[in-house]
Amino acid sequence: MIDINDRQSQQDQEFMKRALALAEKGRGQVSPNPLVGAIIVKEGSIVAEGYHEKYGEAHAEINALRQAGDEAAGATMYVNLEPCSHQGKTGPCTEALVRAGIARVVIAMRDPNPLVNGMGVTFLRSKGITVHEGVLEQKSRELNRGFIQVQSTGRPYLSLKIAQTLDGRIATSTGHSKWITAEPSRKMAHKIRATHDAILVGIGTLLTDDPRLTVRYSRGTSPHRIVLDSQLRVPLDAKVLSAGLAPNTLLITTDAASKEKITRIEERGASVKILPRDDRGWAALPAVWEFLVQRGVTSILIEGGSTVQTECIKGGFANRLYLFIAPKILGSGIDAIGDLGIRNINSALQLVNVSIRRLDEDFLIRADFSF
Amino acid sequence: MIDINDRQSQQDQEFMKRALALAEKGRGQVSPNPLVGAIIVKEGSIVAEGYHEKYGEAHAEINALRQAGDEAAGATMYVNLEPCSHQGKTGPCTEALVRAGIARVVIAMRDPNPLVNGMGVTFLRSKGITVHEGVLEQKSRELNRGFIQVQSTGRPYLSLKIAQTLDGRIATSTGHSKWITAEPSRKMAHKIRATHDAILVGIGTLLTDDPRLTVRYSRGTSPHRIVLDSQLRVPLDAKVLSAGLAPNTLLITTDAASKEKITRIEERGASVKILPRDDRGWAALPAVWEFLVQRGVTSILIEGGSTVQTECIKGGFANRLYLFIAPKILGSGIDAIGDLGIRNINSALQLVNVSIRRLDEDFLIRADFSF
Repeated sequence: MIDINDRQSQQDQEFMKRALALAEKGRGQVSPNPLVGAIIVKEGSIVAEGYHEKYGEAHAEINALRQAGDEAAGATMYVNLEPCSHQGKTGPCTEALVRAGIARVVIAMRDPNPLVNGMGVTFLRSKGITVHEGVLEQKSRELNRGFIQVQSTGRPYLSLKIAQTLDGRIATSTGHSKWITAEPSRKMAHKIRATHDAILVGIGTLLTDDPRLTVRYSRGTSPHRIVLDSQLRVPLDAKVLSAGLAPNTLLITTDAASKEKITRIEERGASVKILPRDDRGWAALPAVWEFLVQRGVTSILIEGGSTVQTECIKGGFANRLYLFIAPKILGSGIDAIGDLGIRNINSALQLVNVSIRRLDEDFLIRADFSF
Repeated sequence: MIDINDRQSQQDQEFMKRALALAEKGRGQVSPNPLVGAIIVKEGSIVAEGYHEKYGEAHAEINALRQAGDEAAGATMYVNLEPCSHQGKTGPCTEALVRAGIARVVIAMRDPNPLVNGMGVTFLRSKGITVHEGVLEQKSRELNRGFIQVQSTGRPYLSLKIAQTLDGRIATSTGHSKWITAEPSRKMAHKIRATHDAILVGIGTLLTDDPRLTVRYSRGTSPHRIVLDSQLRVPLDAKVLSAGLAPNTLLITTDAASKEKITRIEERGASVKILPRDDRGWAALPAVWEFLVQRGVTSILIEGGSTVQTECIKGGFANRLYLFIAPKILGSGIDAIGDLGIRNINSALQLVNVSIRRLDEDFLIRADFSF
């Protein structure tokens, strides 16, 4: 016997998968807004699709409704985020859904903003629209983890990327680190870059590696490039300041930076932001996150060095770890993570949602911090 | 169409699997001899089984032939190691096979001893017996890796067991390490213990952890316990010197050990061996391996500490790594592996035959050194 509910639920998942794929198309264009995709289905067929294409422009639901026209009446809308019921830049989507005669709305997750969470659902139901929640919710939360993080903590979602040997070294004692991992890992690392709004490194890593911090070995848009450089030691011939890259590069510094250097950097097209120092003379991390959120950055991949990453863990700011492990042994060298002040093994930080995959000879462990 | 050769080869593998399982039964009883199992098959059915049960006693082939009696005539023998053609403690097996009228012999691998390698096969063929080689050869080499190692290098097969956090720490900076990994990992560690002739630790690990070094969380015989203790600092109330464990415990020391302490330890039933010192005052590792091979130890699981394991890698003695990784972050602490003198990333030791498995929340990476 075919259970009609099972079939319905399978269909719901398939259409929601399509909505998530559409949402993904807005990547790099919509932050700090969430990635949202919407499809309209009538009698089992997709009649319209839309996604949030650009920050400040129409929401996914509106784009789909426009395409659907009269077909929307009596149809089902699949959308990965609860439709907004508040007057934002574009007017509430819920009212548009009601006007168009949508009969059923399937959503993946509610709006994480505590001020509106559930209000869209309540409004739709009050208008007689059937609302089904929680379809592919986990995938949807993963897609919009930056947006959710900002909504719930005011800070961006921070992922740490580390490439190390089996014995936990990220470089030899002389700082040599090219390459610990093999090509499939580096390709994957670029793919991961493309799922973040920004890539961040400390000045130490920039001075040692002179990275480009772009997405080259994978498809996707290169995120913003951010360098924490409290004394503005960045060389003017650094790759991130080259003609093609500088316009999307931001140096975060302190008042220890020389005015002349700031001018020279800005002349190259990069941005410089002066933030308050902490007691070590670095730009204070809470101020860094606050500033970046204001700039619309909701997720950051932190690629080093050890000092920056250690501070992100120590401060409880780190959300995720992408740990590439090469099947090599280096012996003493530079460690990925420095002193966290942990003296008892029971106080070790326990990571959760751990997954592992093989990348040819290397491994990638992905895990979430659980502060 | 059924390919008769395919069917034959599948049958050969199944019977060889049974021979390997029989061989395994001799574990802990036959070193420095290899683990060998033999079965005799007639018309597709097993008519006799035998394995090498105890050092100095009958070989597997002889035990199987005895059980088979007249049934051996015209039958096939499956045996995981080339039958010996030299006069050892028990007379050559090859002649017994010929006398019994065995028609076909299937072996997994040749004898690694260069003095006899291939001689058994040649002899059997010269007597008109069909010999088929290489069935489950890799599994067979794995089973007898200790024996093969001793035959080819004169040293025991050394496996390093390390339990570490994601960031490569085996203990906090204060030496606290109980427990980094969870119970499924510790069970697996005991299972691995049972596949070695001996477990070895340095005195530092003994003083910190006071381990029992037995197989408790898994089936199998507890291997010999060996402690490298150049100054004989082992406390008399150490667990490895307790009444039940001492008789199977060996302390390897130098002439820096006090005569009185030696007597006290021997009174408890443990053995003490004095070996020459190296320039650091430790028992020289090459002398340690030589002595242990003489004692019939072909494989050793080295469970720490960092100093001993680093020296085993540095000296090129290490054959395999069992790396347990817990999804935890500790920050600065005690590292698994110390300075190996590697200054360039391209000189990092590349491990091979890498496999990974999940043990609940932990991971076990198994890999072989490729010196």
